[in-house]
Amino acid sequence: MLKLITALAFSTTLFATSAFAQKAAVKNNSITQEEVLAAQQAWGKALVQISQDFEKGGIAKATETAKSVLDAAYGYDDGPVLFKPTLTSGAQTFRTTYEGALAYFVGNNSKFPQDSGFALKGWRKTEIKNSALYLNGDLAISMGNVMITNKDGQVTTVDKTWGYKKDTDGKIKIVLHHSSLPYSAK
Amino acid sequence: MLKLITALAFSTTLFATSAFAQKAAVKNNSITQEEVLAAQQAWGKALVQISQDFEKGGIAKATETAKSVLDAAYGYDDGPVLFKPTLTSGAQTFRTTYEGALAYFVGNNSKFPQDSGFALKGWRKTEIKNSALYLNGDLAISMGNVMITNKDGQVTTVDKTWGYKKDTDGKIKIVLHHSSLPYSAK
Amino acid sequence: MLKLITALAFSTTLFATSAFAQKAAVKNNSITQEEVLAAQQAWGKALVQISQDFEKGGIAKATETAKSVLDAAYGYDDGPVLFKPTLTSGAQTFRTTYEGALAYFVGNNSKFPQDSGFALKGWRKTEIKNSALYLNGDLAISMGNVMITNKDGQVTTVDKTWGYKKDTDGKIKIVLHHSSLPYSAK
Amino acid sequence: MLKLITALAFSTTLFATSAFAQKAAVKNNSITQEEVLAAQQAWGKALVQISQDFEKGGIAKATETAKSVLDAAYGYDDGPVLFKPTLTSGAQTFRTTYEGALAYFVGNNSKFPQDSGFALKGWRKTEIKNSALYLNGDLAISMGNVMITNKDGQVTTVDKTWGYKKDTDGKIKIVLHHSSLPYSAK
Repeated sequence: MLKLITALAFSTTLFATSAFAQKAAVKNNSITQEEVLAAQQAWGKALVQISQDFEKGGIAKATETAKSVLDAAYGYDDGPVLFKPTLTSGAQTFRTTYEGALAYFVGNNSKFPQDSGFALKGWRKTEIKNSALYLNGDLAISMGNVMITNKDGQVTTVDKTWGYKKDTDGKIKIVLHHSSLPYSAK
Repeated sequence: MLKLITALAFSTTLFATSAFAQKAAVKNNSITQEEVLAAQQAWGKALVQISQDFEKGGIAKATETAKSVLDAAYGYDDGPVLFKPTLTSGAQTFRTTYEGALAYFVGNNSKFPQDSGFALKGWRKTEIKNSALYLNGDLAISMGNVMITNKDGQVTTVDKTWGYKKDTDGKIKIVLHHSSLPYSAK
Repeated sequence: MLKLITALAFSTTLFATSAFAQKAAVKNNSITQEEVLAAQQAWGKALVQISQDFEKGGIAKATETAKSVLDAAYGYDDGPVLFKPTLTSGAQTFRTTYEGALAYFVGNNSKFPQDSGFALKGWRKTEIKNSALYLNGDLAISMGNVMITNKDGQVTTVDKTWGYKKDTDGKIKIVLHHSSLPYSAK
Repeated sequence: MLKLITALAFSTTLFATSAFAQKAAVKNNSITQEEVLAAQQAWGKALVQISQDFEKGGIAKATETAKSVLDAAYGYDDGPVLFKPTLTSGAQTFRTTYEGALAYFVGNNSKFPQDSGFALKGWRKTEIKNSALYLNGDLAISMGNVMITNKDGQVTTVDKTWGYKKDTDGKIKIVLHHSSLPYSAK
């Protein structure tokens, strides 16, 4: 957060009173485009990681990894997260709590009987195509497509909105996540 | 934006130096929950209005109303809006421009051949059930269900995320809108 | 941060689909006027507390209290604080570091030889008269007069600007503090 | 505000589904360090300009220029500005209104009898030495010294805090300005 800058020089006037460039301490709480793109990439890698850990270490290992991902990448510690996963419906559509999010990713929670564990589906790769980014202070929103490929090479495309919050100590957390399958006329 | 407040009194000490309550000018740029709920209601009414204007005045009247709604309620004047309408797909899924948004609501644009005019479908009522609100300075995000009822009493439910920006002169504009049909397992 | 609200009812239409008022989880990261006024009061009390602790427990106790105040009320943990105390000058005018702030309040630091410990001056009361408040998301700024009274009943008035940051877990920290003696024409 | 970016490439995997780099529309409402430094420079130039216009065109011309500066550089249009000029005192210390600010810069207002017109004092140069910058979304604060030199080569140094707000259409406005003469022990 803290870095030194060398500000604009003031060298061309007769009355210059300082021969030295100034240095100012700078604190910037705003989120950057680079931080958003990095957080998107991290999300994609985390999804693949959970799948691979499930294949190697079973549900226990996958759950452990999923918890780490939720802790590091989502803002549940600070309150509700606006999370509408791709495959939820009915009274359990919105997963504003940590437990609801974990159930969606790894299933095995009797309170969420429809959840079969989205992150356990053998994912191998994610690709992100942003349509637009909106940066507003410490909050940024991205909208676009995410293509996720499984071990058989099948690609699932979703319409995705993410909202990222940069917290006071500089960590980036997902506070909004709306994912939906593309509309298809019947 | 500007109002006078009477701040905390300091009356109980021996050394009180002022007999009068202070008044401070207050400027508050943050969006409130009330402003978000009001903007949601306004959106619902506007959708119904376009439908009714279409029935009474045809496409010309409906288009005029839709333009007024977009001007007043969406932030296209200030840049791209992150808009994923309910029924779009393929290369035209995201409507980050004013023209794309207008086409979605009233159709009749050869550049958007799949658009039949969502706001022309005889809507009579909208009901909004928020799952969660996230207020972050001048930006607020809501997530929940919206139920829209047509003239035959049929109800369409969508999963909806809206992002609202309060601009410098206090107007509330939609800068994010992700709408999707509920997932149903096949 | 998290509370339940009962949103607007939608009860008067023919097509009402829900008999129950909705409840939405709400997270609000914006600072409020009440939080600003409370933080100002807390600052005044802390100043008096350091003075009283100095009288009762000497410089060791006063320093301990001053550190607690700095930890709780100022944002040095997250980077530089923009702090221009009332009585500093020259190369040590600005106290962007924790050490510089502590030296100002309790002195006894050979690196800051001009500091005699502002908080040790027998303060008994502070009164705050805001001229204006500016609330901008998680950051708020106040400007006005602060009158501080010592044990002899003498009142010192300063022109004061404070900037308050509400951090991710809801704590209010001073990130800006510019204090100056009133101008008097010679 | 709006620009196109080429996001991270995804070229090294077997399952790449797109041969083309994506482009996303980007809106960034956060203020940058460069914008702050430019606004500071503009303020310095404007002060010199008013002085020069006063010398060439008298008080009428100076007032006209001062109004242009206030309109362009200060946020009075949107509410109170937290302005404590260097040389104000008593009940007129804080100039939260446009009229009070104009009176400070060019005097000649019977409601502000102590104002002799700070900007009319033959200024020729301003130099800004920032001690620290704090960037927080669309609001940035700078603190440091400003040295202003008059036509006789005399330099006046002030301790200065500025708060800058980036409004919805990207303009930078001063919403906070606390200026004070350096403290000198008697």
